[in-house]
Amino acid sequence: MPLKEAALKHLRGILGPGRLDVEIEGRACNAYDATGQIHTPDAVAYPETKDEIAAILRLANAMEFPVAPRGAGTGMTGGCLAVQGGLVLSTARMRRVVSLDPANMVARVEPGVVCGRFQEEVEAMGLFYPPDPSSAAFSTLGGNVAECAGGPRAVKYGVTRDYVLGLEAVTGAGACIRCGVQTAKGVVGYDLTRLITGSEGTLAVITQITLRLLPKPASTLTMTAVYDSVEDAARTVSAIFQAGIVPCAIEYLDQAALVCAEDYMRAGLPTDAGAVLLLAADGSLSQTREDAARLEEVCRFRGARAFEAAGEKTEKLWAARKSLSPALFRHGPHKINEDIVVPRSRIPEMVRKINEIRERTGLVMVTFGHAGDGNMHVNIMLDKNNPGALEKADKAVDEVFALTLALGGTISGEHGVGATKMRWFGQEIHEEERALMLAVKRAFDPKGILNPGKIFG
Amino acid sequence: MPLKEAALKHLRGILGPGRLDVEIEGRACNAYDATGQIHTPDAVAYPETKDEIAAILRLANAMEFPVAPRGAGTGMTGGCLAVQGGLVLSTARMRRVVSLDPANMVARVEPGVVCGRFQEEVEAMGLFYPPDPSSAAFSTLGGNVAECAGGPRAVKYGVTRDYVLGLEAVTGAGACIRCGVQTAKGVVGYDLTRLITGSEGTLAVITQITLRLLPKPASTLTMTAVYDSVEDAARTVSAIFQAGIVPCAIEYLDQAALVCAEDYMRAGLPTDAGAVLLLAADGSLSQTREDAARLEEVCRFRGARAFEAAGEKTEKLWAARKSLSPALFRHGPHKINEDIVVPRSRIPEMVRKINEIRERTGLVMVTFGHAGDGNMHVNIMLDKNNPGALEKADKAVDEVFALTLALGGTISGEHGVGATKMRWFGQEIHEEERALMLAVKRAFDPKGILNPGKIFG
Repeated sequence: MPLKEAALKHLRGILGPGRLDVEIEGRACNAYDATGQIHTPDAVAYPETKDEIAAILRLANAMEFPVAPRGAGTGMTGGCLAVQGGLVLSTARMRRVVSLDPANMVARVEPGVVCGRFQEEVEAMGLFYPPDPSSAAFSTLGGNVAECAGGPRAVKYGVTRDYVLGLEAVTGAGACIRCGVQTAKGVVGYDLTRLITGSEGTLAVITQITLRLLPKPASTLTMTAVYDSVEDAARTVSAIFQAGIVPCAIEYLDQAALVCAEDYMRAGLPTDAGAVLLLAADGSLSQTREDAARLEEVCRFRGARAFEAAGEKTEKLWAARKSLSPALFRHGPHKINEDIVVPRSRIPEMVRKINEIRERTGLVMVTFGHAGDGNMHVNIMLDKNNPGALEKADKAVDEVFALTLALGGTISGEHGVGATKMRWFGQEIHEEERALMLAVKRAFDPKGILNPGKIFG
Repeated sequence: MPLKEAALKHLRGILGPGRLDVEIEGRACNAYDATGQIHTPDAVAYPETKDEIAAILRLANAMEFPVAPRGAGTGMTGGCLAVQGGLVLSTARMRRVVSLDPANMVARVEPGVVCGRFQEEVEAMGLFYPPDPSSAAFSTLGGNVAECAGGPRAVKYGVTRDYVLGLEAVTGAGACIRCGVQTAKGVVGYDLTRLITGSEGTLAVITQITLRLLPKPASTLTMTAVYDSVEDAARTVSAIFQAGIVPCAIEYLDQAALVCAEDYMRAGLPTDAGAVLLLAADGSLSQTREDAARLEEVCRFRGARAFEAAGEKTEKLWAARKSLSPALFRHGPHKINEDIVVPRSRIPEMVRKINEIRERTGLVMVTFGHAGDGNMHVNIMLDKNNPGALEKADKAVDEVFALTLALGGTISGEHGVGATKMRWFGQEIHEEERALMLAVKRAFDPKGILNPGKIFG
């Protein structure tokens, strides 16, 4: 369904000529995301208001062309890609923090606000926006809501969903809606807010977000626990919770991840270790110190050969952790990145079996992630141009997903299904639930113009 | 739509004769809730499995009779009442804790498990289920999920929604579904779990709930802050958050509420005060003490005439707070109980205007509630048999709701719309959003047999 000249003319009428890009350079800049797939749209729209977005979507319904909403293009599953061509609707010109209300600890933002900048802005006021996807320096809050982004702090503070109080959005049908509340609580009618959150841009284009904030914790301490045995590290994770501690991060890095991070950042991580847990505690100064001492106790008891407060190395360690996703490319030009979740107690079994798959297949597999949530990023690095490489990797992914589901897990903790996981969607979501989801989709987007070719296949 | 003899025969076939009650005594016991309204069903079913529930709902679709799911009947808005007759589907025989997994801090329960008993059971294992509606001693987890129940601890820990990881349910159409996850995170497909949570039994009958648990905090301290001025008390609420403290409860009681509670419980509350804040802090012992000291500082600075640690009186104070809802009946045989929410900073204005309405109308109005969330229970006590009493009270409710919405609030924080707030639903939820909700309703319950006469009017 390429965009016809008549549609482009209408779009120019809605946006003015300066905010519709049909040149190849602009289209190419909106053709990618973190999957490495390229889908060049026919045009890119840069609306600035919800009325413009509504006009675009009504036009898309009338003339039946696909619209792919796009934040910063940092997604891991192709959620923002125009896989069926048509229009990319970029939120790059909707970057206003509409209001920031410290008395009520609530902010209203446009979807194109970059997560990391927003965090800096609220922290300067003594406030705190916990969701911290590794992409936070680039990714937008609109994209974070659409994907229900997580991050290391989710283990204590929850995911994006837990901070979205209300939304303004335009449905696929072009209706402007406002759902949720501006208050701490609200239960009037069905929860459209959380229905749209995590719907990967397939139900509505988000035009404004009301976010809940917290007071900024007085102190944070980062620590590393170094293990010879991968399984000892994995077993520590549930032991921490069973000791009654709720740290604000429990990140796991296996040896391959440690080597990658060290090559890239020289943060002083031990590349000879089987695995490292990167831990953080926050709260009042006394609470943080108490938690840190107890974390050391649990980690050492569970076999950590070393336990260190990060001190001055804190920023560097987190930068190393956050750089892992791009750093992996030294192992191969292509990456398959899955973000499975298993119950915390099953992490030891999961990492053991992933190692078995790696040894058996000879694939380059690097595992790291938010172990506190049981959310592991399993990465397979490859060169797709090598004959058979992709098939072999895909088979390993099949195995990883089957194992995940058998252990009571889910195939995505924070990246979504998008275009890249559709093949496995049916293994987790059965026909009855899929039918309900599709009925919901039809209610919001009867003509299916919004982000087609995602989630459901 | 009374239940026909043919339908009763089929129901007996599904349930056996012992679990279908058509006697007036059994029907009367399932005809009420906390609203004081009486709607006697034609029969009461006591299923024990999801297959039985599915069979009942398929029959209801085939023979077109209404089904009202019911937990303990403690709801505040008529959510469980058979307002159009038909069948009450009681979860009283589904009281099993299916599994309790301390390593993963996850529990699976049947819907009829009583919240308070569940809390005791998990606390005995060092775990913690935070949602604590005042009805917890009686109300069921199924009802809590259906209404998205809150409670005092919501200010720190969130509401029921924040603890529901996954659900098994039977849709209005009779389809058995399983949604959500058993893990800390999950974003595969649309969030049917949170869509069903808070849908007031109109989309699906919940047959099993997967709940997230936390480690039990090591210590909790309760305190009271006594104010002469209602507005000073109200202003303290946002000051506490602005000081960076997140207490686990900030309950507000106005003078009328204090008098009621004292008459009923003799907990030592000052009946001459303008208002009292009942505060709680929890966490590690050091954190709790630190928070308590800082709470005292903020409260005194904001005009508290007294500030006391509750010490031995803790249980009695909470019992007094939780008894307020029934205790109010000494002021009149009938109660109109609204649970509005306003942004925290607007609480002073809200309580001032509620006082104006009370003085102007001469109505008996008692205000208390979860001030930390801006969630205030505004109660009007009356005798409906007095000519004109109900009309006058209804007019006052109109005013309270209009004021709430004008202040950026919502007409229900935790009780839902049910049957009693339908008249005001349209003031908060506009036509576009209502249309989407009704489309969702049709997707789950095309024949509208499940809990008709609720939410949408």
